[in-house]
Amino acid sequence: MYGFINDYSVIAHPNIMKRMSEINLDQHIGYGFDEICKSARHLLRIKIGNPWARVFFVVGGTQANMSVISSLLKSAEAAVCANTGHIFVHETGAIEATGHRVITIETPDGKLTPAHVEKVLMQYMERPHVVKPKLVYISNSTEIGTFYTRAELKALHDYCKAHNLYFFCDGARMGSALMAEGSDLTLHDFAELTDVFYIGGTKNGALMGEAVIFNDHKLGEDYDMVMKQRGALLAKGWILGLQFYELFKDDLYFDLARHANVMAKKIAAAFKENGIQMLTDSHTNQVFPILTHAQKETLSQKWGFEYWGPVDEEKDAYRFVAAWNTIEEKVDELVKDIANL
Amino acid sequence: MYGFINDYSVIAHPNIMKRMSEINLDQHIGYGFDEICKSARHLLRIKIGNPWARVFFVVGGTQANMSVISSLLKSAEAAVCANTGHIFVHETGAIEATGHRVITIETPDGKLTPAHVEKVLMQYMERPHVVKPKLVYISNSTEIGTFYTRAELKALHDYCKAHNLYFFCDGARMGSALMAEGSDLTLHDFAELTDVFYIGGTKNGALMGEAVIFNDHKLGEDYDMVMKQRGALLAKGWILGLQFYELFKDDLYFDLARHANVMAKKIAAAFKENGIQMLTDSHTNQVFPILTHAQKETLSQKWGFEYWGPVDEEKDAYRFVAAWNTIEEKVDELVKDIANL
Amino acid sequence: MYGFINDYSVIAHPNIMKRMSEINLDQHIGYGFDEICKSARHLLRIKIGNPWARVFFVVGGTQANMSVISSLLKSAEAAVCANTGHIFVHETGAIEATGHRVITIETPDGKLTPAHVEKVLMQYMERPHVVKPKLVYISNSTEIGTFYTRAELKALHDYCKAHNLYFFCDGARMGSALMAEGSDLTLHDFAELTDVFYIGGTKNGALMGEAVIFNDHKLGEDYDMVMKQRGALLAKGWILGLQFYELFKDDLYFDLARHANVMAKKIAAAFKENGIQMLTDSHTNQVFPILTHAQKETLSQKWGFEYWGPVDEEKDAYRFVAAWNTIEEKVDELVKDIANL
Amino acid sequence: MYGFINDYSVIAHPNIMKRMSEINLDQHIGYGFDEICKSARHLLRIKIGNPWARVFFVVGGTQANMSVISSLLKSAEAAVCANTGHIFVHETGAIEATGHRVITIETPDGKLTPAHVEKVLMQYMERPHVVKPKLVYISNSTEIGTFYTRAELKALHDYCKAHNLYFFCDGARMGSALMAEGSDLTLHDFAELTDVFYIGGTKNGALMGEAVIFNDHKLGEDYDMVMKQRGALLAKGWILGLQFYELFKDDLYFDLARHANVMAKKIAAAFKENGIQMLTDSHTNQVFPILTHAQKETLSQKWGFEYWGPVDEEKDAYRFVAAWNTIEEKVDELVKDIANL
Repeated sequence: MYGFINDYSVIAHPNIMKRMSEINLDQHIGYGFDEICKSARHLLRIKIGNPWARVFFVVGGTQANMSVISSLLKSAEAAVCANTGHIFVHETGAIEATGHRVITIETPDGKLTPAHVEKVLMQYMERPHVVKPKLVYISNSTEIGTFYTRAELKALHDYCKAHNLYFFCDGARMGSALMAEGSDLTLHDFAELTDVFYIGGTKNGALMGEAVIFNDHKLGEDYDMVMKQRGALLAKGWILGLQFYELFKDDLYFDLARHANVMAKKIAAAFKENGIQMLTDSHTNQVFPILTHAQKETLSQKWGFEYWGPVDEEKDAYRFVAAWNTIEEKVDELVKDIANL
Repeated sequence: MYGFINDYSVIAHPNIMKRMSEINLDQHIGYGFDEICKSARHLLRIKIGNPWARVFFVVGGTQANMSVISSLLKSAEAAVCANTGHIFVHETGAIEATGHRVITIETPDGKLTPAHVEKVLMQYMERPHVVKPKLVYISNSTEIGTFYTRAELKALHDYCKAHNLYFFCDGARMGSALMAEGSDLTLHDFAELTDVFYIGGTKNGALMGEAVIFNDHKLGEDYDMVMKQRGALLAKGWILGLQFYELFKDDLYFDLARHANVMAKKIAAAFKENGIQMLTDSHTNQVFPILTHAQKETLSQKWGFEYWGPVDEEKDAYRFVAAWNTIEEKVDELVKDIANL
Repeated sequence: MYGFINDYSVIAHPNIMKRMSEINLDQHIGYGFDEICKSARHLLRIKIGNPWARVFFVVGGTQANMSVISSLLKSAEAAVCANTGHIFVHETGAIEATGHRVITIETPDGKLTPAHVEKVLMQYMERPHVVKPKLVYISNSTEIGTFYTRAELKALHDYCKAHNLYFFCDGARMGSALMAEGSDLTLHDFAELTDVFYIGGTKNGALMGEAVIFNDHKLGEDYDMVMKQRGALLAKGWILGLQFYELFKDDLYFDLARHANVMAKKIAAAFKENGIQMLTDSHTNQVFPILTHAQKETLSQKWGFEYWGPVDEEKDAYRFVAAWNTIEEKVDELVKDIANL
Repeated sequence: MYGFINDYSVIAHPNIMKRMSEINLDQHIGYGFDEICKSARHLLRIKIGNPWARVFFVVGGTQANMSVISSLLKSAEAAVCANTGHIFVHETGAIEATGHRVITIETPDGKLTPAHVEKVLMQYMERPHVVKPKLVYISNSTEIGTFYTRAELKALHDYCKAHNLYFFCDGARMGSALMAEGSDLTLHDFAELTDVFYIGGTKNGALMGEAVIFNDHKLGEDYDMVMKQRGALLAKGWILGLQFYELFKDDLYFDLARHANVMAKKIAAAFKENGIQMLTDSHTNQVFPILTHAQKETLSQKWGFEYWGPVDEEKDAYRFVAAWNTIEEKVDELVKDIANL
């Protein structure tokens, strides 16, 4: 049984394991004050083209979302996201647990537009009886495999600036988004067009960890404390710094993401060629075929993948995820099995 | 200009003002430990037919909702309500500010059914990535003027028991609901069929205050502290007890609610007779005609009423509220003006 | 039995009851948007000498403290107060329930000095492992009857400005403080020397309510929503506005406070003349004699007063509170009984 | 420069690194549902002698404390700890951020007794104006190197049972405590005498992670969701399970802790032999010599150690921590340097 269940099913890229083994017994000070984190922060500032950015390494995505959002919002302020947004769907109410409403909007493709946000602002006008929408949360790539273009990101950025809203991008799958066919975005754009974003390590080669980046130096000045308070800080911080250094020093991060996308594309193509409909038009590392019960049964005898949700009485959507570590031979075998459905 | 804007637009029923004036300078101990509150609690226990109930007097509806819900829920537990629910729509995220998600369901009439709750339970199964729906919140009457029957309340009660959910009823407009034509519910039913409910004073003759009732003695054992913590406790508690005593000793509460309903019925009838459509089929003290811009302009020259929401390009819904203090002559005059539209 | 238990033991000053009765059935819009509140806000801005101040009327002291502090603090920020501070001692953890630590300092007299705050700042330096002290909370008069001088207030103000701390004064007993013998402070000083303060109504003639004043217009721009969210907003807001208008239009507020102080002074003098030690050197409306068990027994047969805390094996401290409504004849009788101890 | 700064200054024990490397690219499902975690949970249940215990692996100590405490407490309930308690001193108000007060008591040695807790209960009696102390938090070993005996632990357990309090032990340094000279406790005792405790990995050989154990199956039934909500859940959960399996399958955990204690004892002995006073009488892996400025200067030229706090004008306390990885030759060298002071 080979798995396409998710992109965090193995420990870490061999380079990372190797480097960790090499320095395993070297002493470092904790909490990210070490020299490795310093180098990694420096490297990332260069990669994103923002020398003033504040860079923090946190344990994982939920911790990143919860700590960033709670550091930005004041009482009675709320976050806005797509109804597929990770903070709404898969984080056990972590944002609400910090005291803030998550306002959701239905979107066809998991992406927000200024029109969506505008609609929310219109719905939340009856002050003081309603919360104040104050932060726009997007994911790139989204939870359903779509990604933003530069024009789309800029439109949201401009809308947020004009309406005094924070703009935050969850980049748990940033690599896959940036390497997607048709993507015209780079990390520089995120440094320019968001207030805060993060670069996900967990789902693209790291053992764990996300790099949270406050583009505005001032905005992130107290985030270190919130990060600790909300459970996002790792005692052995240099382990996180080390990973981002390894992933970015030679752009391994992008190579890994590209591989995942290429593998996913093969899978998606196989489904499409066999006339199987897809839930979303994904060009990233997640694809969502809509399968009959029989098709699902056949494939699940050899392959691991996840149930996503119901479509109609005869069909359900499933998720196949390719990752940096997905083995091409396995993909080719899966492709044959799909063709034989 | 005479107002049908809401049911809390004057200070208090004259009996209450009179009684307050009589005892104005009598000394009482604070925080509801006084003899008047004791008597009022005793009276309400009799009125609801539950000698073991715990009765508390709180400042207002938001304070009641927030303190009750936060006293019942533990971390990662959520409240479920209709998408028109007061806790979701008009309380500035007060529940989320206590750390709990409010899960909403679209309903045609502001009322929940077991099927609605079931749908939520099905959506929140992917443990541990989702919150645990744990409390069902309803309003009676609802925010859009509808009310529950005994069979409907019992069905929800039974579903909640079977699924280990708390069942809580916001009774800010309980009087109007119980006195509605077609209602077969009494306070005894709420004592029997809910875990916690409250009887609203603010909107039915009191200067302010709601009587929160925990039907299960055990369930409310620490509510006194939560009530204080969440801003629901009044220092001069006897003022609240006094009001509920006045409202219930001779069932004035029900008389006042009946009057409001009768007045609202006249107004609704006038709209219907003139061929004007209503947003909801209300038999309580709130009615929601759908008016053209011209109709709205005409009526608003003499009468106060509230914009409720858009219907289509030519029409909007408005809210007319009758109250315990609504003057019949004014209603008759309004009825004529409606007929002349 | 006549009570000196607290200063909120009767409903309201007759002027207020009279005015409420006069307008009892007049219709007003809710939530403080009415004309009476507008006038009262205007009046208070004049009385404090700050035309730009934002003035809000809230239900009570706990609600004021909790809503103001939670509106000012961000995640990982904390409030600092004396170990006798009301927010620490008597509000059931309301501040912590909004997510913020309350840091306390032992003080001999319930008052803070810059040296106290400095000590806290020194203790909370080990960033990011500690919260950030960000708001200094004082009470005037304090919970143990002492009050601040202008020089003391100014010193705290200057320290807070220099260290980027908010400075907030709980004025639940502001009247008594300002009218105290030896006080050189006026409301103008609080407008000048604090960021936010409030003028307590509940304990000085009002049925209930406190006037929260943000001296910096910008600082209070979203307080209206937090006030609603935290249970501090009264639906029938004009009842609060009416009271502050009555209390301040002819400076009744100060007359009432002066009376309370004069009565308290008589009581304190009686104790002192009889050689009874006082817990604190109070010049406000609360006095704290240290009584033997026998003395306590004797007085408690005729008079109501509160146990405050243990002193030694033979003696305890008690609290006698005089109020705006304290009857001088009763005080004179108490004075005799004290003399006869 | 060799460091005695803390016990989490290197990545992980070589056995763990080796095992991680061996299975690096094996696929596992996430969030602790994997087979390795299952085995590790099974192993720990055996090691503690409680087949019904619920065992969870979390990211670190702050996350463990915050998630456990917030899963147990309801609104208006508080945790009680020593004034040196980690949750009070070093976690940036994480507990308060979940809405609960942390009540502290001064203790001479960082340990709580029933008398301490009793004192808190007496101070928090004025219901409903105060929070309800509901959970007793201890650390073993404590933050200042002391540890509990079985009699002490039992006394606290019995007191908590009798007073309906939860009893929770932070075991970030459980290994060192159990291996301390004079300790008569085993993991079985913690399974028997606490409601919840955890076994710390981060500070005793693991790359990271703590094993949280709910001794009462029922008590931990919803902890999985709280763990996710509060940022304690690791996506690649099997990495945590793997470590605890490695540490406990052959009792490596205890060997590592014993080594740390032996090394610390050598250091402490050196100080004492040289007439240097210690802040606490520690038999665990942390020792706290009180050094003159000159002594500190001399040692710090070759050795890393941490400033702990002021003692008098001439001396300060410092912390030397020995760990599982502390090199004996380095200790011997340090011992010589101490002798030469």
